[in-house]
Amino acid sequence: MTRRTVEVKVSIDRSIQQSAEDIARAIRERLAARKILAINLISSPGSGKTTLIEKVIDALAGKRRVAVVEGDIETDIDAQRIRKHGVQVCQINTRSSCHIQPAQLVKALEGMDLDAVDILIVENVGNLVCPAEVPLGEDVRVVLLSVTEGDEKPLKYPLVFKTSDILVITKTDLLPFVQFDPEAVRRAARAVNPGIEIFEVSATRGDGLDSLLARIESLSAGKAR
Amino acid sequence: MTRRTVEVKVSIDRSIQQSAEDIARAIRERLAARKILAINLISSPGSGKTTLIEKVIDALAGKRRVAVVEGDIETDIDAQRIRKHGVQVCQINTRSSCHIQPAQLVKALEGMDLDAVDILIVENVGNLVCPAEVPLGEDVRVVLLSVTEGDEKPLKYPLVFKTSDILVITKTDLLPFVQFDPEAVRRAARAVNPGIEIFEVSATRGDGLDSLLARIESLSAGKAR
Repeated sequence: MTRRTVEVKVSIDRSIQQSAEDIARAIRERLAARKILAINLISSPGSGKTTLIEKVIDALAGKRRVAVVEGDIETDIDAQRIRKHGVQVCQINTRSSCHIQPAQLVKALEGMDLDAVDILIVENVGNLVCPAEVPLGEDVRVVLLSVTEGDEKPLKYPLVFKTSDILVITKTDLLPFVQFDPEAVRRAARAVNPGIEIFEVSATRGDGLDSLLARIESLSAGKAR
Repeated sequence: MTRRTVEVKVSIDRSIQQSAEDIARAIRERLAARKILAINLISSPGSGKTTLIEKVIDALAGKRRVAVVEGDIETDIDAQRIRKHGVQVCQINTRSSCHIQPAQLVKALEGMDLDAVDILIVENVGNLVCPAEVPLGEDVRVVLLSVTEGDEKPLKYPLVFKTSDILVITKTDLLPFVQFDPEAVRRAARAVNPGIEIFEVSATRGDGLDSLLARIESLSAGKAR
């Protein structure tokens, strides 16, 4: 009895997964038609996603029109922070969902003026597991890992590191005070994803931001071509 | 068509949820019969769960027999760390599950000598969302929040703070180097859970460990009565 029930659930989960992929593909086509670079930003809670987005917005002001979709279980704290930087922002509250669902992103995009956007940054719910399983039609998936989280994380949460294009090691200003070996992280990340690009950044101090910004600009230029 | 499919899924999810609660109840009864204090430890990846467990084991050596169940998506890195402290440990690899499932815990307990255990610590998968939804038959749910994660987290991830008995603010040795107001966290945590007990700890430096250990010992004594 239980067994049959679970089999039913699996087949339905597959159809929901399929439908999510269809929606993600539609999002990708819609953004591609407007030459918008879409970035899906994933990390644990508190790795510094919002702070990094704030720095990127300020650094690209006048050069690229950035818009942000904020995903959180509850509250619009992050959207309020982003709004102060004068860009379009939409807050999604995912409630019981541990990741942004493609359909939620579709609804968020409906409320935005996409003709006035060059780069769309989607800040996913703070979580290293569920968001990794769900494509949102992004061009680039970026995973953040702060130096306070431990250097074994790519081995313990392989999927998000395997499916990401870029790894940003954040909060490097705290390196003198924690046990964290950036080289060990590079090795571990490349063990699950040999092609992953890796940046080291202290968003609060500015270290390493220039090369990450240059990469984002070049990805955006590639879309606009 | 899609709508009907989703409705089917919801009803099956409910029956799975019910079954999970039944298993959790059975775990609770089994541990209670042996007067074992069961602690479910939840936090983001890298908030210091394993380090805290190591300190608790060493501090209680000779006073309480601690056993540990380690939950990780992949690897047995944490179980290897715990094993060095000379206690029973079982690693669960949850694979695609973002939390330990009650049935996985049952299987882990089958391989342990529960007659030689006073305190069972279950280290859940690093995640502030999914583990909060799933009872494991624990007596005490403990959520960790490190000072590097930001003081707004109880508002953004309310369920885990609402369902926890104890909040441990960890890595307080890093307070001078980050923007984090412990009082703001206390207020935010109590806004969602007025009865939550709050401790501040630096596991690496030892600050605040004594009062947390005293609380664990008193909870254990309460079970043994």
